[in-house]
Amino acid sequence: MSAYDELMAFQRETEALAQISGRLGWDQETVMPRGAAEQRGEEMAAIEGVLHARRTDPRIADWLAAAEPADEAAAAQLRLIRRAHARATKVPASLAQALARLTSTAQGVWAEARAAEKVADFLPTLAEVIALKREEAAALAQGGDLYDSLMDDYEPGATAETIGAMFDRMRPRLVRLREAVLAAAAPSRLAHHFGEPAQLRFARDLATAFGYDFTRGRLDLAVHPFSSGSGNDVRITTRVVETDPFNCFYSTIHEVGHACYELGIDQDYLLTPVGQGVSMGVHESQSRIYENQLGRSPAFTGWMYRQMLDRFGDFGVTGPDEFARIVNRVQPGFIRTEADEVHYNLHIMMRFDLERALIRGDLAVADLEAAWNDRFHADFGVAVDSPANGLLQDVHWSCGLFGYFPTYTLGNVYAGCLHQALRAQVPELDAQLARGDTSAATGWLREKVQRHGGLYEPRAVIAQACGFEPTEAPLLDYLDEKFAALYGL
Amino acid sequence: MSAYDELMAFQRETEALAQISGRLGWDQETVMPRGAAEQRGEEMAAIEGVLHARRTDPRIADWLAAAEPADEAAAAQLRLIRRAHARATKVPASLAQALARLTSTAQGVWAEARAAEKVADFLPTLAEVIALKREEAAALAQGGDLYDSLMDDYEPGATAETIGAMFDRMRPRLVRLREAVLAAAAPSRLAHHFGEPAQLRFARDLATAFGYDFTRGRLDLAVHPFSSGSGNDVRITTRVVETDPFNCFYSTIHEVGHACYELGIDQDYLLTPVGQGVSMGVHESQSRIYENQLGRSPAFTGWMYRQMLDRFGDFGVTGPDEFARIVNRVQPGFIRTEADEVHYNLHIMMRFDLERALIRGDLAVADLEAAWNDRFHADFGVAVDSPANGLLQDVHWSCGLFGYFPTYTLGNVYAGCLHQALRAQVPELDAQLARGDTSAATGWLREKVQRHGGLYEPRAVIAQACGFEPTEAPLLDYLDEKFAALYGL
Repeated sequence: MSAYDELMAFQRETEALAQISGRLGWDQETVMPRGAAEQRGEEMAAIEGVLHARRTDPRIADWLAAAEPADEAAAAQLRLIRRAHARATKVPASLAQALARLTSTAQGVWAEARAAEKVADFLPTLAEVIALKREEAAALAQGGDLYDSLMDDYEPGATAETIGAMFDRMRPRLVRLREAVLAAAAPSRLAHHFGEPAQLRFARDLATAFGYDFTRGRLDLAVHPFSSGSGNDVRITTRVVETDPFNCFYSTIHEVGHACYELGIDQDYLLTPVGQGVSMGVHESQSRIYENQLGRSPAFTGWMYRQMLDRFGDFGVTGPDEFARIVNRVQPGFIRTEADEVHYNLHIMMRFDLERALIRGDLAVADLEAAWNDRFHADFGVAVDSPANGLLQDVHWSCGLFGYFPTYTLGNVYAGCLHQALRAQVPELDAQLARGDTSAATGWLREKVQRHGGLYEPRAVIAQACGFEPTEAPLLDYLDEKFAALYGL
Repeated sequence: MSAYDELMAFQRETEALAQISGRLGWDQETVMPRGAAEQRGEEMAAIEGVLHARRTDPRIADWLAAAEPADEAAAAQLRLIRRAHARATKVPASLAQALARLTSTAQGVWAEARAAEKVADFLPTLAEVIALKREEAAALAQGGDLYDSLMDDYEPGATAETIGAMFDRMRPRLVRLREAVLAAAAPSRLAHHFGEPAQLRFARDLATAFGYDFTRGRLDLAVHPFSSGSGNDVRITTRVVETDPFNCFYSTIHEVGHACYELGIDQDYLLTPVGQGVSMGVHESQSRIYENQLGRSPAFTGWMYRQMLDRFGDFGVTGPDEFARIVNRVQPGFIRTEADEVHYNLHIMMRFDLERALIRGDLAVADLEAAWNDRFHADFGVAVDSPANGLLQDVHWSCGLFGYFPTYTLGNVYAGCLHQALRAQVPELDAQLARGDTSAATGWLREKVQRHGGLYEPRAVIAQACGFEPTEAPLLDYLDEKFAALYGL
């Protein structure tokens, strides 16, 4: 066997073990009996230990040195393996273990502080997490920017400088749009009960309508919806609120976007580094375009409206136009995960600025709550009323996920670009969506983006799909036009 | 850390990884999407590779040489680790891999041959499996008996000679009982429809009645019922036949017996070799005593009868006596897994004799079908009518499970002994069972057998629980008395 073949055989086993670890995560959030939690912790630690040992295996460096890529795909495999191996070996094992231990307890501390609405109970632990993340970032950056080195885990090639500049350009336009929409008449509110079984039946049909392959996946309930797995076992979850069916339906469509990305990757890349979504930003571009640009388009919501009348009877909405406004409701709110398309990116931008300052040492943990609340008031026009609605709302920082937040908005920006290109290349799109048929759109995304997996760098795969370099303009134009039409601005 | 502590820390991780492998098996049989089968094969191979490497890790021999056990439990841990390590290292890695590969494809060959009713399609593959198992047995036996060395995997300490002699003593009495019961009037047949949701609700209540802890387990549907896992995550499955509710109810009680054994082991032994059922025979003793001696006792079926009237309405059975006879129906049949208490062990004995002859080289694969059919006619009084009802009915041989079958009857024999001791020590048992209360019985079993896990050798734990050396007599006496009373013999 050549060095390349040996490396890939080793890597294939590692990817298979990583899939197992992911499946345990799925199990934990969906079917695990609660009394198994402690034992599961040991099981997860054991498999993570195996994975860490494999990812830092010294043979990888030898194979990498000797391997000759035969083609473009092989070159991409080597690039991804080299990057992951470099990251895994730069961080000392003792630091990696300390971080794993700390972030696992920090999540519990965060959850308790949030329940008790006590910021002070969380801050000392957060300070410890930040200290270790700064150590990790220093080991990874080797003299470069600390925050960039963390973000590189989620969005290879992105820099805080470029993203920060883009966010600064986006922010005033979004604040302006927010103010204009909130000044207009709000849509009516649903006052109907939507039973769980009927919601779940429609969720399954929506998943199928968006091309989700149930022979290689499944839909279950979980507290927080997620998609999990790569290759041919990619499972999604949703949740049900009986007064708000859109929670279930759009969570489902969102996770279908993530899942279809993984399921759409060429089978040649199964269980290899290229056989996975290339970055969190590109992943989010798929979930967002499925959920928003397609799923919340007035063409598609017209079809949904008729479907819901058939399934739930008259639920008190006067027609498809009012239905589209309800689905696209814009309203102030404290919680990122409940935010609409206009507010969502404002949530992300403030987190990005705050966490970058924390990692760079420009903001002390003691000043974080005041900084959060000031910024929230400036961007959202209302004062934070409680820590659970403020800086204690997200789990990310307790998990050590610094550098992750910006990928959400990057995903929206990429979705905006893809949507513009898609509209240009598939002129009959709305006519299809109005029949509940997404196949032209999802087929285009699969062909242009999904099938490549990690073959190209994140920004490159979007640029190639669109035929232009990605910028924030298409997203902002789309939002302006859509909400102007819906709200008669 | 002492050598013992290092060894146990290493072992604990290995046990955690083995639990993960078991959970993947559960996933595959209950929730896995069918399109994931091939990928799952690679995942299973990867985790099995990790487990094999750990089980043959050369450090284990060093730790074992240096470890000093501090107490009885530590001595038992070392004994079990030494045995497993010796078995793992005696078999060359190339042979272990060849067996894993062959038995994985052999199951597919067997399933197709069974579906096509073509023995000849399976025999060449079976011959290959037997050849490799003989090689494996020779490596393990190191001059001793080949069959014993295979059986040792499932029932440490058992020998074919002792078991064969016991089976030869049991066989004529069972044949006699079978003939007497079949000559008597048969109970009536159910002619009612028992809906799946109501069956599953009662199955859950039966599981709870037998002490199954749903906070550390769950009940799902599967094609073949099984119990899976150790420690604090032990899951069971059942199946539903809407014309035959006893299929679901007694499969559930049987699997609850297996699961309660694992769940009942002292928490001190969690994720260690002692923290698991000590042998397949002792495991089966728990599932069988739950299912048969307790679950099919006329006292308990009287309670079940009233429960079923409440839940399903009048289902056409005249009273608790007739109900008890239906639950304990004895009838001729080709299929082991559907056999009643009288016939079941006759199925096992013929498989034991045939597989022992195959492994010893006393029976050629070409002569197996004739040998099977002759023996079946002699013991059951009817001719096998098709291969799927004959030697193609069981998956075991295609998986390489030689030496496993006798543990089923050994379990019944142990259950008979435990039942005799239990009756002597808990005189009010029937009064409790008649109220649907199994707590005295299951509490006794937990205290006497289950909590010890692998602390004592299989035969020793039964002897200690009973206060006498186990023999076949209690089981045979119990069967004679029970069926004499039910059938008025």
